[in-house]
Amino acid sequence: MTEDSFQLHQRSIVIDGLQTCAWSREIFEQMRAGGLTVVNAASLLWENFSEGMAYIRTWERHFAENADLIMPIRSVADIETAKRTNRTGISIGWQNTSPLEDRLDYVRLFKLLGVNTMQLTYNTQNYSGAGYLEERDSGLTGFGREVLHEMNRHGVLCDLSHVGDLTSADVIEHSRRPVCISHVLPRALRDVKRNKPDYLFRACAEKGGIVGVSLFSPGLRAGNDATIDDYLDAMTHVLNIVGEEHIAMGTDFSTGHPRPGPWLLWANRDKGYGRQLTEFGRTTIRKPAGFASIPETPNLTAAMMRRGWPTGLIEKILGQNWLRLYHDTWTPEV
Amino acid sequence: MTEDSFQLHQRSIVIDGLQTCAWSREIFEQMRAGGLTVVNAASLLWENFSEGMAYIRTWERHFAENADLIMPIRSVADIETAKRTNRTGISIGWQNTSPLEDRLDYVRLFKLLGVNTMQLTYNTQNYSGAGYLEERDSGLTGFGREVLHEMNRHGVLCDLSHVGDLTSADVIEHSRRPVCISHVLPRALRDVKRNKPDYLFRACAEKGGIVGVSLFSPGLRAGNDATIDDYLDAMTHVLNIVGEEHIAMGTDFSTGHPRPGPWLLWANRDKGYGRQLTEFGRTTIRKPAGFASIPETPNLTAAMMRRGWPTGLIEKILGQNWLRLYHDTWTPEV
Repeated sequence: MTEDSFQLHQRSIVIDGLQTCAWSREIFEQMRAGGLTVVNAASLLWENFSEGMAYIRTWERHFAENADLIMPIRSVADIETAKRTNRTGISIGWQNTSPLEDRLDYVRLFKLLGVNTMQLTYNTQNYSGAGYLEERDSGLTGFGREVLHEMNRHGVLCDLSHVGDLTSADVIEHSRRPVCISHVLPRALRDVKRNKPDYLFRACAEKGGIVGVSLFSPGLRAGNDATIDDYLDAMTHVLNIVGEEHIAMGTDFSTGHPRPGPWLLWANRDKGYGRQLTEFGRTTIRKPAGFASIPETPNLTAAMMRRGWPTGLIEKILGQNWLRLYHDTWTPEV
Repeated sequence: MTEDSFQLHQRSIVIDGLQTCAWSREIFEQMRAGGLTVVNAASLLWENFSEGMAYIRTWERHFAENADLIMPIRSVADIETAKRTNRTGISIGWQNTSPLEDRLDYVRLFKLLGVNTMQLTYNTQNYSGAGYLEERDSGLTGFGREVLHEMNRHGVLCDLSHVGDLTSADVIEHSRRPVCISHVLPRALRDVKRNKPDYLFRACAEKGGIVGVSLFSPGLRAGNDATIDDYLDAMTHVLNIVGEEHIAMGTDFSTGHPRPGPWLLWANRDKGYGRQLTEFGRTTIRKPAGFASIPETPNLTAAMMRRGWPTGLIEKILGQNWLRLYHDTWTPEV
């Protein structure tokens, strides 16, 4: 008797490569409904050092108050515990290295506090490199090389999703460990700056990294009219470029933040208050129909089965590829 | 009866466009011996916000304890007071916008506290642009444009001495007010990265700005064997490029800091502790013979007279050009 999609989803390790929600017990319940084993919880965008510490403190409170639903992921072994105890593991992530300010040795401190993933830059320039919205891309700066070295050394996975193309290519070249593009769509299917070109997907995969395909509809050809089938088309494109060991999902769910609303307006200004960078804080953006909310995550498994994708491939996309990458990048060298 | 060089020096407004000394009463006595009316006191290199505030606090203590020798310059009118009361006016300067961290509105706060000049970047990348030692030059970043706008608006003079060539050109293009290159030597005479090309001198002058010729011997052809005549040769080169309204002196005296020594080693590492950027912290660097210390400043006036330069030109180089630039850039627009 063949397994149905719900059974497959329920028994699988399911990892969402990036969410940026307004965290609350309600969201954690949605994660359980969606069958999520691990979420890279990355609502940190422009924060400085003390605000970065506040992000950790807030998570510690969530862990204490919602221990029936979630648990902290500090090592790969914790993922097994989360699966076994039927909870969602929270891996704290950053979408900017702004909390490091000018201090290299904060990389290790934050890793010890549970920050497993750091995107090198958010939308604009920082000490380490350029975000995708700078007119010119500095590439990886001298300091950026040192930050990357510390991330490699202490076991922090480097994410390139909002990073400029040239800086991304530099990171892939200079990193001693695989990296990820946690939530991205292909520019080959829709030519917008936030999407990435195939050559970066290929380079990321050749380095042993992961491309997490995102649900951010402005990056899909159909925009707000997109469905889960458009999402699978984007996945198919990436799969053809990178191969089945290097593709995963990174939904970019921002549940709980009204759009328009203060947090998304903050997100879309430089450093939270400077010039407005994009219209994304003001416009209506709908996730693809059929996979428009966290509890609908099992629909992805069903859709992949409908396309006849082999069970092994589905398991890799759902979580096994992320799991391997975490194995390869999270252990400190020292 | 013609004026001798000492008389000319004594009656002139004499402004040193940049010093980076280990400030002490002994240095302030040297400034008096050198006949200095104003010094842009810019020993701030990598400091963050609170360290930038500490720099101000330290100066307030110096002002209180040495009121017979120095006084704070908070406006152009204060320069007249300094001259009249036979004291050296201290204009607080920065060689980096690092104390702004990620906050645009700190520009105005620091201006109110007496910071009249800010170099946009020190040797490496910051949020605003690239220093001259980055492999790639980002140019002026989006945030950098906003910082520059705030500097223009609140009356902070922008300095480009250690700034990368492309970023410098961008600043000159985008600034609404004249800018300066406070301490620099011509690359046309010695092709080293720290020197600047003639086209930037020309662009700075066309904008109404000032090129302050520096005594930093690694930028002179004769290096440690240079004399005050080599310095005047460099001045002559710059003079021919920019014309007599746009040239001045910016000695880069670092008196009181042993070389090699901890401060100069700190200065020559990224952010004070990262990778070593240059050998300048370790090697012997002598200022040109004849103008090797602050009390020898009157020798410059004598040397210019020996070359037969007109009194009017000498006065401009000694201080009138800086004075005009301060008039043009220090008054807040708001």
